[in-house]
Amino acid sequence: MRLVVVGGVAAGTKAASRARRVDPEVEITVYQEEPEASISECGLPYLLSGKVSGRDRLVARTPEDFAKKDIEVLVRHRVESVDPENKRLSVTNLTTGETFEDGYDRLVIATGARAIPPSIPGADLDGIFALRFLTDADRIMRHIRERTPEKALVVGGGYIGLEVAENLHRLGMEVSLVEAAGQLAGAYGLEVAEIIEGHLREKGVHCLFTGEEVETFLGDGKGRLRAVRLGEREIDAEIVIAGVGVRPQVSLAQAAGAEIGKTGAIRVDRRMRTSLPDVWAAGDCAETANLVTGEPGWLPLGDTANQTGRVAGTNAALGPDGEGTLEFPGVLGTGIFKVFDLGVGKTGLSEREAERAGFKVVSAGIETGSKAGYYPGAGKVFIKLICDSKTGRLIGAEVAGDSADKLVDVCATAIWGRLSCSDLVNIDLAYAPPYGPTLSPVIQAATVLSGKFRTSDRA
Amino acid sequence: MRLVVVGGVAAGTKAASRARRVDPEVEITVYQEEPEASISECGLPYLLSGKVSGRDRLVARTPEDFAKKDIEVLVRHRVESVDPENKRLSVTNLTTGETFEDGYDRLVIATGARAIPPSIPGADLDGIFALRFLTDADRIMRHIRERTPEKALVVGGGYIGLEVAENLHRLGMEVSLVEAAGQLAGAYGLEVAEIIEGHLREKGVHCLFTGEEVETFLGDGKGRLRAVRLGEREIDAEIVIAGVGVRPQVSLAQAAGAEIGKTGAIRVDRRMRTSLPDVWAAGDCAETANLVTGEPGWLPLGDTANQTGRVAGTNAALGPDGEGTLEFPGVLGTGIFKVFDLGVGKTGLSEREAERAGFKVVSAGIETGSKAGYYPGAGKVFIKLICDSKTGRLIGAEVAGDSADKLVDVCATAIWGRLSCSDLVNIDLAYAPPYGPTLSPVIQAATVLSGKFRTSDRA
Repeated sequence: MRLVVVGGVAAGTKAASRARRVDPEVEITVYQEEPEASISECGLPYLLSGKVSGRDRLVARTPEDFAKKDIEVLVRHRVESVDPENKRLSVTNLTTGETFEDGYDRLVIATGARAIPPSIPGADLDGIFALRFLTDADRIMRHIRERTPEKALVVGGGYIGLEVAENLHRLGMEVSLVEAAGQLAGAYGLEVAEIIEGHLREKGVHCLFTGEEVETFLGDGKGRLRAVRLGEREIDAEIVIAGVGVRPQVSLAQAAGAEIGKTGAIRVDRRMRTSLPDVWAAGDCAETANLVTGEPGWLPLGDTANQTGRVAGTNAALGPDGEGTLEFPGVLGTGIFKVFDLGVGKTGLSEREAERAGFKVVSAGIETGSKAGYYPGAGKVFIKLICDSKTGRLIGAEVAGDSADKLVDVCATAIWGRLSCSDLVNIDLAYAPPYGPTLSPVIQAATVLSGKFRTSDRA
Repeated sequence: MRLVVVGGVAAGTKAASRARRVDPEVEITVYQEEPEASISECGLPYLLSGKVSGRDRLVARTPEDFAKKDIEVLVRHRVESVDPENKRLSVTNLTTGETFEDGYDRLVIATGARAIPPSIPGADLDGIFALRFLTDADRIMRHIRERTPEKALVVGGGYIGLEVAENLHRLGMEVSLVEAAGQLAGAYGLEVAEIIEGHLREKGVHCLFTGEEVETFLGDGKGRLRAVRLGEREIDAEIVIAGVGVRPQVSLAQAAGAEIGKTGAIRVDRRMRTSLPDVWAAGDCAETANLVTGEPGWLPLGDTANQTGRVAGTNAALGPDGEGTLEFPGVLGTGIFKVFDLGVGKTGLSEREAERAGFKVVSAGIETGSKAGYYPGAGKVFIKLICDSKTGRLIGAEVAGDSADKLVDVCATAIWGRLSCSDLVNIDLAYAPPYGPTLSPVIQAATVLSGKFRTSDRA
């Protein structure tokens, strides 16, 4: 049996490794377009500043490592097309330029996501970058080395934009941030957006233009970026990182006839099967169910890529009717990022998202201490819990500040376990002075929230 | 309506505050035997070393603070007896020595727990202390100031003993630790006990005698502690902290006729009502259901004291038939402590406890990174998950190392939500390189554990 995996970052390599573990006999080839496979893409912003000390550290495994597990990983190989009827592939070797045919019995598509290039006049000037692949980071770092830009502009106030802003600032650049939406971190409520904005200003990212769009990139006459124009304003910048968003990479699957969901990503069932026979998909190119809304969703994140890769790889190795196939239930939309000293995390739905999904919500946001007040190093944290007013169930949480990672994970687990506000009032979490206030911020927020429910038995 | 609360630490003051909030009219008196009320007792070990910078920092609220909320808090007042038939109390003012009578309509008993004094020859020598009340810490600190002991011995390797060992070591003392049981931290499995022991040795707490009991305290002939004898061995020590355990303080309730559970603590229902009419109990003196075993349990911890105090105070204010009374479902046995740089936490049952409770268990323990491996400052963490082999449900978890507080809270929430191993394989937790490895240690351990379940649909 021959298994081919298209794409060799998180989901693709995980699928290949799982398939090998499930079936020592299966023949496995991974085609990867970029020069490296098995990249920790989430670490790219930290590579820019040297916080992560070298590009090799982001390469989790080399093709040689995979060869030891009898997995063939071919980098700089682009799969051009898939013929699902005859189970054939057309592949270009990007090093030699040669195109060849290959066959498969089973196929896993893990083509990932791509940065959306800015479609603005001047976008081809030297000094404008996306940050998606390790090769992007290479280009940015070379530009920084050679041109030593002093002023940087980051387009996009989502988590990648914010992480990049921090890391360019760490290099001593004067960093400006532009966000077209009215707030930073659009997946969050306004309270958290304002906490982030305050923290950025405090750190010296002094020019925040939320609600403004870059209209033109301006050159220096020699093809190099000099500034950007926003309305009346011109902002000097010798480097721009445009983290305006990513898009699932589905052209290969779509051309082969795979069904694309309304999110724009490849439609899959709980076993990560596409609509094509013997073809699975995983990672950033695939949809995943949102367990809170019950609707298909798309949220390209590294942990989900690993988890869906595990399911797709196992099932591809076992075959569609194999015993022991796995199911991936879906996601909650859990995420976290760090911007300077501030941790910001979210799980489930924001108030806005919940209302859009048809929930009537009751919510409470509090600011409290992250440790016992008398214990040295106690910090502050904001936490907001969002419950469905009908059932009392937690459907979303947002956290910003110290111990955000802990609190968001507790809330994610609570949503996964369908816990209600009253559960969270009484829940037995761990307490000791170095680790939190006597009652966890989650419990404190739930207690405030319980007062907002009319029916007393929910309080 | 007159509400009397006996005991003014965590549960008692919380009950009083909640009662005030529920009913602005109720007359509230709190009798507290010690000279201060509303003490953060969990901070006491850190007071010894100066890590917490002054005793006042551990006094969350003074009687004057409570007076502003129209709650009378009388310190140095000991309730000698309760007459539940006539709803009368006998109280001694420990300052004046005077005894007087008081009456109540409703009563909350929050008499807490007491340290078990060592019943060993020489236990009355100068230099042997328990650490339970702020006044104990005062005495210990005075002894340290006046005698400047160089060698300390801690009796008891539970969390208080371990915290005390760290804090005496911080003061420059040579610290030895003795534990009568065969392992430290007896509520945990052997793996964690060994991690703790290794960490203590590394930090220079070089004399660990697990499985040995102090037989005699030896004096210097002037009534002062000089050494302790263990079998053949004599260990020099000018100060001993005997953290050998605590016992619920139930004499008052028992003499009044309240039912005492088989744990030795006051029996209560989910509304924290005792067997006496109009008498509630909360905090360290009361039992709480163990939600994993379904059996009554006793686990004296500050967070539970706050939560049960909230329920008892609310219900006492509302009355036995009041609308909106609260229920406290029980606890999981969640706890955490820090010993030097090591965080150690637990929730649910250890393997030993689970087997004793009649479960057949499947477990997996792994050591993994606490952050993305390439991110600076990544540490190590050991995590062990314990599942019921019949249902696949998580019934216990132990963690030791970096991010222990986060992981134990995730596991506690998972047990509360009755999640199974397969839930934890797929659960959507927050990932970013500064906060954890791509897949949370909980997910990693669950994935290993899932391989141990035969039936594939649980994997």
